[in-house]
Amino acid sequence: MSVSAASELTPPDIVRCAYLDLVVTDLAASREFYVDTLGLVVTEEDDEAIYLRSFEEFIHHNLVLRKGPVAAAAAFAYRVRTPEDVDRAEQWFAARGCRTERRKDGFVKGIGDSVRVTDPLGFPYEFFYQVDHVERLAWRYDLYTPGALVRLDHFNQVTPDVPKGREYLEELGFRVTEDIKDEEGTTYAAWLRRKATVHDTALTGGDGPRLHHIAFATHEKHNILAICDKLGALRKSDVIERGPGRHGVSNAFYLYIRDPDGHRVEIYTQDYYTGDPDNPVVTWDVHDNQRRDWWGNPVVPSWYTEASPVLDLDGNPQPVQERTDASEMAVTVGADGFSYTRKDDVDAGFKLGNSL
Amino acid sequence: MSVSAASELTPPDIVRCAYLDLVVTDLAASREFYVDTLGLVVTEEDDEAIYLRSFEEFIHHNLVLRKGPVAAAAAFAYRVRTPEDVDRAEQWFAARGCRTERRKDGFVKGIGDSVRVTDPLGFPYEFFYQVDHVERLAWRYDLYTPGALVRLDHFNQVTPDVPKGREYLEELGFRVTEDIKDEEGTTYAAWLRRKATVHDTALTGGDGPRLHHIAFATHEKHNILAICDKLGALRKSDVIERGPGRHGVSNAFYLYIRDPDGHRVEIYTQDYYTGDPDNPVVTWDVHDNQRRDWWGNPVVPSWYTEASPVLDLDGNPQPVQERTDASEMAVTVGADGFSYTRKDDVDAGFKLGNSL
Amino acid sequence: MSVSAASELTPPDIVRCAYLDLVVTDLAASREFYVDTLGLVVTEEDDEAIYLRSFEEFIHHNLVLRKGPVAAAAAFAYRVRTPEDVDRAEQWFAARGCRTERRKDGFVKGIGDSVRVTDPLGFPYEFFYQVDHVERLAWRYDLYTPGALVRLDHFNQVTPDVPKGREYLEELGFRVTEDIKDEEGTTYAAWLRRKATVHDTALTGGDGPRLHHIAFATHEKHNILAICDKLGALRKSDVIERGPGRHGVSNAFYLYIRDPDGHRVEIYTQDYYTGDPDNPVVTWDVHDNQRRDWWGNPVVPSWYTEASPVLDLDGNPQPVQERTDASEMAVTVGADGFSYTRKDDVDAGFKLGNSL
Amino acid sequence: MSVSAASELTPPDIVRCAYLDLVVTDLAASREFYVDTLGLVVTEEDDEAIYLRSFEEFIHHNLVLRKGPVAAAAAFAYRVRTPEDVDRAEQWFAARGCRTERRKDGFVKGIGDSVRVTDPLGFPYEFFYQVDHVERLAWRYDLYTPGALVRLDHFNQVTPDVPKGREYLEELGFRVTEDIKDEEGTTYAAWLRRKATVHDTALTGGDGPRLHHIAFATHEKHNILAICDKLGALRKSDVIERGPGRHGVSNAFYLYIRDPDGHRVEIYTQDYYTGDPDNPVVTWDVHDNQRRDWWGNPVVPSWYTEASPVLDLDGNPQPVQERTDASEMAVTVGADGFSYTRKDDVDAGFKLGNSL
Repeated sequence: MSVSAASELTPPDIVRCAYLDLVVTDLAASREFYVDTLGLVVTEEDDEAIYLRSFEEFIHHNLVLRKGPVAAAAAFAYRVRTPEDVDRAEQWFAARGCRTERRKDGFVKGIGDSVRVTDPLGFPYEFFYQVDHVERLAWRYDLYTPGALVRLDHFNQVTPDVPKGREYLEELGFRVTEDIKDEEGTTYAAWLRRKATVHDTALTGGDGPRLHHIAFATHEKHNILAICDKLGALRKSDVIERGPGRHGVSNAFYLYIRDPDGHRVEIYTQDYYTGDPDNPVVTWDVHDNQRRDWWGNPVVPSWYTEASPVLDLDGNPQPVQERTDASEMAVTVGADGFSYTRKDDVDAGFKLGNSL
Repeated sequence: MSVSAASELTPPDIVRCAYLDLVVTDLAASREFYVDTLGLVVTEEDDEAIYLRSFEEFIHHNLVLRKGPVAAAAAFAYRVRTPEDVDRAEQWFAARGCRTERRKDGFVKGIGDSVRVTDPLGFPYEFFYQVDHVERLAWRYDLYTPGALVRLDHFNQVTPDVPKGREYLEELGFRVTEDIKDEEGTTYAAWLRRKATVHDTALTGGDGPRLHHIAFATHEKHNILAICDKLGALRKSDVIERGPGRHGVSNAFYLYIRDPDGHRVEIYTQDYYTGDPDNPVVTWDVHDNQRRDWWGNPVVPSWYTEASPVLDLDGNPQPVQERTDASEMAVTVGADGFSYTRKDDVDAGFKLGNSL
Repeated sequence: MSVSAASELTPPDIVRCAYLDLVVTDLAASREFYVDTLGLVVTEEDDEAIYLRSFEEFIHHNLVLRKGPVAAAAAFAYRVRTPEDVDRAEQWFAARGCRTERRKDGFVKGIGDSVRVTDPLGFPYEFFYQVDHVERLAWRYDLYTPGALVRLDHFNQVTPDVPKGREYLEELGFRVTEDIKDEEGTTYAAWLRRKATVHDTALTGGDGPRLHHIAFATHEKHNILAICDKLGALRKSDVIERGPGRHGVSNAFYLYIRDPDGHRVEIYTQDYYTGDPDNPVVTWDVHDNQRRDWWGNPVVPSWYTEASPVLDLDGNPQPVQERTDASEMAVTVGADGFSYTRKDDVDAGFKLGNSL
Repeated sequence: MSVSAASELTPPDIVRCAYLDLVVTDLAASREFYVDTLGLVVTEEDDEAIYLRSFEEFIHHNLVLRKGPVAAAAAFAYRVRTPEDVDRAEQWFAARGCRTERRKDGFVKGIGDSVRVTDPLGFPYEFFYQVDHVERLAWRYDLYTPGALVRLDHFNQVTPDVPKGREYLEELGFRVTEDIKDEEGTTYAAWLRRKATVHDTALTGGDGPRLHHIAFATHEKHNILAICDKLGALRKSDVIERGPGRHGVSNAFYLYIRDPDGHRVEIYTQDYYTGDPDNPVVTWDVHDNQRRDWWGNPVVPSWYTEASPVLDLDGNPQPVQERTDASEMAVTVGADGFSYTRKDDVDAGFKLGNSL
């Protein structure tokens, strides 16, 4: 089928990001991190995998931890609106020459008829409708911890060519809500949504395909602070990579931590409604020092450079392509880059204590 | 056009509840309440009307305060997905024999081509797509107050026959998320949504058509407490009718206050995501004492009995029809009714201090 | 020793309210309430008693639950500044003709040399300096619950003659921070402190001597809401007697709950610093509807009328004397009393929905 | 009078830190910072000085901004318990050979009979009892901002020899609550209190005498986050020097910002009660990476090295003496120093992204 024919196909009606299938190398260590420390709820587990969900979730899981030899993301799974949308997903990607694999009984427990694809950017995407319902624990305040995670919020993917990725995802039905650019027209990152939040996934410019992070939501900001406090009490504060802080992009309150394999997890709360068809896109200047942290606190280098491999449909790590566009870190930090707090006031506008 | 033909028409694709057109008798007093006390943002105002929006809104307004002789709701306005959906709305209601009025320049400032209808329940509904964009103040923390209202969340309507209203709204494309029933099959209330929250509007059983309330959202629970504290400081605590508290239905944190005309306003935060096609409907037993307040605090009688008139398309108050089904107040409070905290433990389960 | 001689004695230098010795009739039920539900920390326990403390405490306990035949308060215990202050306490009360009992090894575990007295109002007071230190769990965020209780804040005692009680406590070294009076000069309640908060104990006018409540502090308001939410989830919302709300007196955020024996517990946060020698006393008008709830929410009758017996030094319940002054409930609620929101605006100032 | 005689004098009974007299070079710029941005309340102002207080304060001011040629601290003022304690302060410092100056009408508006001294460490200390009372705005929620500052909490002073300073302050009646040391016995910092919080002042080892910071308290953590958000909205995020974060020492939540002259202001909330005579002293290892930030986030170098001059009683800046003990920055950061998250786990325990 030709590309023009492909573009005439109806894409699947994606409802939301639904779960991440994540390979970890030490299941017990990961369980301690995600269950004992973060308090995600175990729906089901065995020696090979643990199925976890957030407190307000009613589908079987939002995260699968699967034991494996290489820490990597095995699938970014999206829920679609109808069973037929799984067919549409299979056809839409196949028409683009992507490898697809359909399993009527699903790839993981709790999920039925699904298709997995290697998408044009090299990421393993899954689409499913059929899923087991479990108890929505929203009202089970007897089980809440101070840092309770209540929803899966989004994925974040590293890819070398953000405009290319954005175009593909827009064809797939995503809408851009925010992005980071410079005056020369380079795009450094873009946020794309299906559900009416700032994103279901985002593209971060860098060597890819890699998983940048998975994000869970809390109800309030103090819940995120409570996670930090608990990590301190457990003498695990070194898993805090960045934050807590307020994002410029998305306006959400955030924290980035790293799991025992180095997989990055964001805890996130309070972005805004984006569901109108003409929701205004917010474009940030890459040199704006408040774009990634509204308070101007520095982004640590590891946040820009480190990410997790992703797998192909055979379970092998995808090769990583280098970004050829300018890197956000290079154009904003240190000798080669600059950032401002007030655009026409560069002398005074540098962050005090910003010595990275 | 016959009813069967009407049912074959495609309803408009409604995006969300967008604004309420509200008649008030003293514009200055209403301004003091909504602007000075609650901190809603004035987009535009003149001697006849004030156009207000919440902090995260980008359309022209979420509330119009219009000076008039009788305090009443003039229109419950919904945004639709495309300009053509305004046509669909006009045709859909006309086919049901409802009176409609189309204005290419809109009924109020900031809104373009719109249709207003008197719906099958007697409520004035408006549908529009075209709207002026204004600054989304989400990032303007220099303007936030401790009780900042960030979104319009929902309407709530009083109608005598909830099952009839529910059937009509489902045909119009709404989905039920929660309801209150009893074992005999009487429905006391239902919550219906278009956007992925618990509701865009709800039906409360009672004499109607009347406006029960309009609800605005805050980011966190302490914002709602701050509104109460401020009302105390202004010696206006008597506008607090009910709450603050935690709802059973919706799981949201809430407060009900009354404006200078007695129009009811809810302040609301933290319900849950409902956007999946098979989102589970939560049905509450009318006798469950935690259904309307999760902490079992009593619902005051005025909350059940008082509501605002609604207007027809000529601006005259709609006649009110009495509810013939059992009333929620009667079956739950006092000599004729009962409520339980633990279903099979009615002796001990009565709320301490519950003497209403 | 004559009274004038008694008045020349130096009273003990009281540091703060330290613990309550509380008799309960079902130790297992009380443990479920205070430990499983409220999350107080068990320092030590056996078949006869449970010793509990709050998260920031470093002394052995703040609450002793002791199994006994009659639910009652056995001792209101205060810490004094030096070992010699225990002697001073013994002499000071003895000089007033009060019965005293000294135990060098303490009356309860964890506490050394102590004196218990039956004070002039009939309450069992204890004074001690020597105490076992335990781990201050302030930094143990891995153990915190969403509603963590971090400090014992105060006691509240019911006594018929508030001015008499106030005079005695001022002689003992307490300072009044706030009180409730009327224009005729009747005093309805008074708050008295040693540490620099609004109170270590308060006197509530009513039939006494009885224990009105014991109060624990949380860090923030959401912690108190979390306790309510948890009680709802456990289907125990009927233990919520009053609140949550904002006090007028003390400006603190509060909740009143009742334990399995009906003993009242307040959860309390955010009063203000009172440590200056000329700290201004705040006097509230008994008719001010915001004095006990800043938001004007009604005080339930049980809060005014119910309280726990207190024991004499032999463990027998003290006889209760009736209040002869006007009762706060009678002068403010219902046919015989009135309250205002705005003093010279009684018509409009009644709380909506206030039908108690 | 000999030193031994001096040690026999009774020191003044200090109640609390009460206000800072601060010289600023641009009164309008400082007003914008402290009033418009931070929301401190203006008690009184003229062309030369602005008198500011926090919301729960009832004395005339907590901060004086005074126009002058050199940005510096002119006085650290403490309230004493009685008028006679001003005499005691004068005699106590005079007996130590310190210069003193007594003014019956006070050095600033709102304060009466006062003594200022140059203390043994070179700091200008003031002691007063007499003060004008003003309205305590605790209940004025109509005036609160999202980041309302409700109390002056403490001072922090830089001095080269912390053990010497600690000994002097203990003789003056302060009690140590926490300190930072190393295994060799070097003391890097100490926290000292009169009121029952972690400190009224602290000593930070470094070149001094200099003012490290003045700290104001908020009610809750979200109030501090709101200040950060507002600074972002005003495009002044570059005044954020460090934080927000959770302290290890004090267990408080904190933020450090810099005023237009570079004077450092801390915003602080939720330390713990320390009023018992045997309150346990907490000693932190200087190499413990969680001592100054419980989450292990790095302390920026400017926080260690920069501070404000202090004035002598003639208004001239005091000469600064270099610290000769090891510096905390040197022993913990970079090539010459190290920090751990887990003491016996130095390999893995370094903070991710810690590249300072």
